[in-house]
Amino acid sequence: MVKINENFAKLPGGYLFSEVARRIAAWTAAHPEGRVIRLSIGDVTRPLIPAVVEELSRAAAEMGTAEGFRGYGPEGGYPFLREVIAREDYAALGVDIGPEEIFISDGAKSDCAGIVDLFDGDNRVAVCDPVYPVYVDSNALAGRAGEYRRGPGRWSGLTYMPCTQENGFLPRPPEGRADLIYLCFPNNPTGAAATREELRAWVDYANARGSVILFDGAYQAFITSPDVPRSIFEIPGAEACAIEFRSFSKTAGFTGTRCGYTVIPKALRREGASLNDLWARRQATKCNGVSYLVQRGAAAVYTPEGRAQVRENLAYYQENARVIREGLSAAGRACFGGVDAPYIWLKTPDGLDSWGFFDLLLEEAQVAVTPGAGFGPSGEGYVRLTAFGEAEDTRRAVERVRALL
Amino acid sequence: MVKINENFAKLPGGYLFSEVARRIAAWTAAHPEGRVIRLSIGDVTRPLIPAVVEELSRAAAEMGTAEGFRGYGPEGGYPFLREVIAREDYAALGVDIGPEEIFISDGAKSDCAGIVDLFDGDNRVAVCDPVYPVYVDSNALAGRAGEYRRGPGRWSGLTYMPCTQENGFLPRPPEGRADLIYLCFPNNPTGAAATREELRAWVDYANARGSVILFDGAYQAFITSPDVPRSIFEIPGAEACAIEFRSFSKTAGFTGTRCGYTVIPKALRREGASLNDLWARRQATKCNGVSYLVQRGAAAVYTPEGRAQVRENLAYYQENARVIREGLSAAGRACFGGVDAPYIWLKTPDGLDSWGFFDLLLEEAQVAVTPGAGFGPSGEGYVRLTAFGEAEDTRRAVERVRALL
Repeated sequence: MVKINENFAKLPGGYLFSEVARRIAAWTAAHPEGRVIRLSIGDVTRPLIPAVVEELSRAAAEMGTAEGFRGYGPEGGYPFLREVIAREDYAALGVDIGPEEIFISDGAKSDCAGIVDLFDGDNRVAVCDPVYPVYVDSNALAGRAGEYRRGPGRWSGLTYMPCTQENGFLPRPPEGRADLIYLCFPNNPTGAAATREELRAWVDYANARGSVILFDGAYQAFITSPDVPRSIFEIPGAEACAIEFRSFSKTAGFTGTRCGYTVIPKALRREGASLNDLWARRQATKCNGVSYLVQRGAAAVYTPEGRAQVRENLAYYQENARVIREGLSAAGRACFGGVDAPYIWLKTPDGLDSWGFFDLLLEEAQVAVTPGAGFGPSGEGYVRLTAFGEAEDTRRAVERVRALL
Repeated sequence: MVKINENFAKLPGGYLFSEVARRIAAWTAAHPEGRVIRLSIGDVTRPLIPAVVEELSRAAAEMGTAEGFRGYGPEGGYPFLREVIAREDYAALGVDIGPEEIFISDGAKSDCAGIVDLFDGDNRVAVCDPVYPVYVDSNALAGRAGEYRRGPGRWSGLTYMPCTQENGFLPRPPEGRADLIYLCFPNNPTGAAATREELRAWVDYANARGSVILFDGAYQAFITSPDVPRSIFEIPGAEACAIEFRSFSKTAGFTGTRCGYTVIPKALRREGASLNDLWARRQATKCNGVSYLVQRGAAAVYTPEGRAQVRENLAYYQENARVIREGLSAAGRACFGGVDAPYIWLKTPDGLDSWGFFDLLLEEAQVAVTPGAGFGPSGEGYVRLTAFGEAEDTRRAVERVRALL
């Protein structure tokens, strides 16, 4: 008789964004003429840039010819893409990362979840609170999170690092054991960005203890502050303790096209094993690489036209972030993030918890946000707004929210 | 200090196809004017069909418009693809499978490997011998295979079901415990196909014991015999004990484009849990779905033009299979498969093991095959030839191999 992985039953039901969608749908059903502006889910809205569209089409046509057809590709990605990433995303920062240290994938979520395969069940996992749920759930499914406690809303086996207004949403390394440390900067959901000095403290901590930092850099393209590194590998020593996840989703609007990459330096070794080798073996065993044409599309992001077009899209979203941040700050509400990140973290009005404020904004302003409590207990008292909407919608939403503050 | 998943170190080194590629490269380096015909790796060679190329281009253009752009899609796949699969691949066979029982993925390999997440560590896994290495390695990484014993070339914790000339390469259900049973028909590597009656024995066995059959149907498009079912779900009762993996790789040449799907009926429950629900949760946690344009490309396979073009490609490969099968049989060698499958399983000449025959064919005929021993101990004494080459190359290769028999 087959036995089921008992960890599935431990997961708390109801994915955050499903509940948000359910409440929006219920409101819309009750108000057929109403229109909700969604500043909730972190999905892009600008179309794919022309450089990518043209290259996708060209690669599709190429696949239709006898000379140009490609079957199975290298599991870790085609050299043309790995090489341009090494040059443009790392060498350009003065960081020495080779193409064979870069693994192309169908997105950062797959890799953030799949990376747990490399590690033993007996590792202490540390996560920020609030946190992107994928880090927690993938470890919970692998049996590394203990039991979920509904009261505190936390797993018994995880170490939580609260991100609060007091610490500027930038936690310090924990006192106790922390073997696998998930960090996401610029942060989802708080929008906080870590400076060089702050990241250095993490790298020193990990190197001193033999920990591994799992660094989610999905939002690096939004960085504008000069003292905020774009990659953890800008910190000396990080190549011996960190894995970095990157994505074309928010940089180039690939949320529906699917491409990302993971950087595992050859210098990263634990218990005598190269984590680069382990991941190469894992990928060769469990997947067959990313669609050739999608990889061609991703490479087009780095052409001169591609870069210019991407910059334009980013500027569009960054302007939205400014509109939200300045608009809500001017209304006198404490609001954070939105400078080096597409997320704005807004304090709820006194007396309202984050789902209460969500409901108020939906009912009274027809604006959908994401309740902070959905990202973890320290998210209570906040909501997340995203800069990925239409400019006009975003302006209108800010006005409506202001009127309620 | 981080602890590594110790199961990586247990995997026997050297992936089969890497060693094949290494020996071909060594021969080619020593014979710069020589040309090796590769009937070794199971990769397609015909270009993508026009219906798919056009649709990929159209979808790329659509993604470049404000109205047509798509961000995150449903993790399990778009309804347009799930619905056409339910209708054309199942309802057309008289099998009742709903769209919500079909999960789109980037290929059958990802799903065959990922499915192990659903099950507890304490399940007895049964595999055919010879076997597609992915089933074994993904369970070994999850700690469910015990220790690898180099002598017999087997894992201590797996149940092996020998596929031999004596049983027509169709094993019977094992006597002992077998909770998770991997079956692949038409088979890789032997090319054997299971009849309705043979599959019924497996379904009855699994239902009687509460086992789950993991049925790899990646080669179903090659079936021509009327008594060979295209889907395990043609067998009554299979909906309560089987998961089926399907792929566009060999059907429509998607090895480099990446799309497949997994069917988990709602009726499949174990320990009170719906495996369909568990997989939906697993996919939502660990991935963000398949590229929109790739899904559009896959759907184009089912248009009238797409179907006609795919039939033409399949006929091309089927003719190759016939040329190999009949050519080698006429030379008096025992050779199997190649009727309902793109693989031919050829007995080595007396006194040669499968790597010895591989070397002889490479040296004397400049034909690359895959040594059967690479798929498991019962593969010793055989080599695998594939029908995925060029027609003219295939004819020439058969002549050269015949000259050595």
